[in-house]
Amino acid sequence: MVLTEAWEELRPDRNAVETVISALAAMVGNRLVTSQAVREQHGNTLTWVGNQPPDAVVFPQTTEEVQQIVRLCAAERVPVIAFGAGTSLEGQVNAPRGGICLDFRDMNRVLAVHAEDLDCVIEPGITRKQLNEQLRDQGVFFPIDPGADASLGGMAATRASGTNAVRYGTMKDNVLALKVVLASGELMSTSRRAKKTASGYDLTRLIVGSEGTLGIITELTLRLAGIPEAISSGVCPFPSVEAACNATILTIQSGIPVARIELLDALQVRASNLYSKLTLPETPMLFLEFHGSDASVAEQSQRFGEIAQEFGGGPFDWATKAEDRSRLWQARHDAYWAQRGLRPNTQPVATDVCVPISRLAECLTATQRDIAESQLLAPIVGHVGDGNFHVGLLVDMNDEEEATRVRSFLERLTERALAMDGTCTGEHGIGQGKMKYLPAEHGQPALDAMRAIKRALDPLDIMNPGKIFSL
Amino acid sequence: MVLTEAWEELRPDRNAVETVISALAAMVGNRLVTSQAVREQHGNTLTWVGNQPPDAVVFPQTTEEVQQIVRLCAAERVPVIAFGAGTSLEGQVNAPRGGICLDFRDMNRVLAVHAEDLDCVIEPGITRKQLNEQLRDQGVFFPIDPGADASLGGMAATRASGTNAVRYGTMKDNVLALKVVLASGELMSTSRRAKKTASGYDLTRLIVGSEGTLGIITELTLRLAGIPEAISSGVCPFPSVEAACNATILTIQSGIPVARIELLDALQVRASNLYSKLTLPETPMLFLEFHGSDASVAEQSQRFGEIAQEFGGGPFDWATKAEDRSRLWQARHDAYWAQRGLRPNTQPVATDVCVPISRLAECLTATQRDIAESQLLAPIVGHVGDGNFHVGLLVDMNDEEEATRVRSFLERLTERALAMDGTCTGEHGIGQGKMKYLPAEHGQPALDAMRAIKRALDPLDIMNPGKIFSL
Repeated sequence: MVLTEAWEELRPDRNAVETVISALAAMVGNRLVTSQAVREQHGNTLTWVGNQPPDAVVFPQTTEEVQQIVRLCAAERVPVIAFGAGTSLEGQVNAPRGGICLDFRDMNRVLAVHAEDLDCVIEPGITRKQLNEQLRDQGVFFPIDPGADASLGGMAATRASGTNAVRYGTMKDNVLALKVVLASGELMSTSRRAKKTASGYDLTRLIVGSEGTLGIITELTLRLAGIPEAISSGVCPFPSVEAACNATILTIQSGIPVARIELLDALQVRASNLYSKLTLPETPMLFLEFHGSDASVAEQSQRFGEIAQEFGGGPFDWATKAEDRSRLWQARHDAYWAQRGLRPNTQPVATDVCVPISRLAECLTATQRDIAESQLLAPIVGHVGDGNFHVGLLVDMNDEEEATRVRSFLERLTERALAMDGTCTGEHGIGQGKMKYLPAEHGQPALDAMRAIKRALDPLDIMNPGKIFSL
Repeated sequence: MVLTEAWEELRPDRNAVETVISALAAMVGNRLVTSQAVREQHGNTLTWVGNQPPDAVVFPQTTEEVQQIVRLCAAERVPVIAFGAGTSLEGQVNAPRGGICLDFRDMNRVLAVHAEDLDCVIEPGITRKQLNEQLRDQGVFFPIDPGADASLGGMAATRASGTNAVRYGTMKDNVLALKVVLASGELMSTSRRAKKTASGYDLTRLIVGSEGTLGIITELTLRLAGIPEAISSGVCPFPSVEAACNATILTIQSGIPVARIELLDALQVRASNLYSKLTLPETPMLFLEFHGSDASVAEQSQRFGEIAQEFGGGPFDWATKAEDRSRLWQARHDAYWAQRGLRPNTQPVATDVCVPISRLAECLTATQRDIAESQLLAPIVGHVGDGNFHVGLLVDMNDEEEATRVRSFLERLTERALAMDGTCTGEHGIGQGKMKYLPAEHGQPALDAMRAIKRALDPLDIMNPGKIFSL
């Protein structure tokens, strides 16, 4: 594919930025903020990707305002970056070329709940916990749970998933339609509320995972699930990571509709015991959850217990009391903080490879060996039902020698996953942090196609520029 | 969005076509066919959309051959049209501007089955029945069943679904990765075999449903499901279409993981009784199927029976004997032929609207009233779990007055569905037959975005031109 390489990658002229800021101030008053502190809070703050603040932050209240802001920015070729809860992990909210950050804090309403259709219509700034609080009394919930209390707009933009994905899918499976402000300022509806359609290109899935580079999401129609009649949870120890993986494969293959199946390696169990005051044996452990009718969760739990036993695991205790369940999953959700507790004052680096599940044990085992040989401290948690795991590297970034060891470990981890037909990112996205892996993962024709689509929809390269790939 | 309108829509020069045909003859010998009969078989033959044959038909055997053919065609700006089993319903395989048809009959191998990962890698020409025959002894199956024994390449290209979609999703949910020959002749891999990824734009979903207008699929990686331990099927009569719809809504909402839930209206039941020698009461009827463990299908069936009773339906007899089940689903699959039996020598016209399930009863009831008022003969079958139904219009196309009544009925049906936030096509796709509905369904910004993507990936407009939209 022949592509014209004639795109300016420079930071816009300071005058252009000032023109936009003046116009925005006149338009939204004190909902425009340019203080250093607020700007820095709107760059990446969570991970080892550096902080690159925008030139200004604006808090839009309506889709029409978003359209006006984008039109102002487009006229001056000033970048626009959408911001939800700021929980992305690869620098997705950074402003490497400056520009205007749109913080969707004030656009967080539930616009409609259609319980009969198992869908709802929402604004992008609402977080998943806020949404589920508002849905609860209607007997429905939104199942995607990436751990952090992320905004739904951000979750769609990064194609998030998390612990429930093995049963309920990822954001790509749970967004029915989007309203998206394009680089032109026009408002595009990607689809309708029907549960399926074969009409035209799948613009919904094109926007999901595009990390704000093709447009800004201002409304989402989401699929919901009925709150299960019964939920059972439990933990199950295994003699090895391999045994835990093999039990997972057989569970999935047997058609047991497990809702969550999460691996903690022995080091992570130790970290969680310390942080969350648990008393689990410090051996590889699966955390599980089953959803269904009373009879069905009992059957699922029992069948899983039999499978675990086949691989030397168990005993599998399943507690259905809501408080036990909460405590367990709180510990799983706090894995990140527990990791930090193992080595205070270090910067955790989260990896995110995902491989075909048949290769997972091999990938995990080789990675643990690499961690040991590299003399790194790095517990592992994994959404093993999907073949996805996170190595939580605890790195003293002031120690250049250690940082170098970490960087070469990261290269080897990605190469290992790609060699197994896997991906460098199961759910965190590319942002800035993983851009370098794209050529090896996708190959030139796919990358050229992505760039051609980007240019077709954002010819001025103002939508979150410098993310996923540079033009 | 400003777009340049400078695209030639003319049929290529006859010399250009002759140049390509000569080069192809030299390349593939007698795997190039130009006879009138074969050319006509490769245009649309099944529906009331007219037959527009290609200039030649070629039977490629490898991806490299497909790349060479596309490069030859691109050099002369000659259209290329992919052909699987020819079962599409909206003229997707027609050649309105002539060109070269690539019939994938000879590319029908299963390249790999990864039972542990629940996926397989296949060539596009294999049909779903052929695939499932080859998968069966490994305990896995490909669940998407559009009725016709379509090719998997065609099913992906049209985003097909069918009776199992309520549980297993559509082609968009069951394609993991594709290899696609682009308009440049380059081979693009859309993704990898990992079950989920957040890396870059979702090219897989962009190609699924693009009806050959963005590239030609030469390899598919598909998600598979484990063959259920137990299957139960049954039929359940209802006093009205509305009662059947309400029972369906409550079934889905209750989280009963029904595998198939199909509505036949009273007229369709009569047609099927006659054609398939059944003795069902001629009243609206749901055909159901449940997949799971023995205990689970028993529980699902029982719970559905209770719901049916709540809405005045039943009795619900569930037969688990494989032969009873086959007979029932054979009758459902033969619905099209049964419809024809109601009025021989007519041309059936299949509609395909899909609406949010809460509006389904209203949409169906209004449609039945419209059928009666329009004095048309038109049984209805519906994938009601998804809100999708097909009106099978039996039309004497030689009667111009009747054809006019049918055309205005079709307009009203689509308007009705769109007014309910539905789509003109749940699963058949746009092809040529539904192009006129796109502006009303998608709005100008979305259509402009689709056209911009098409131009970005196929600047010469050689990939199945004149489908979905004209440039």
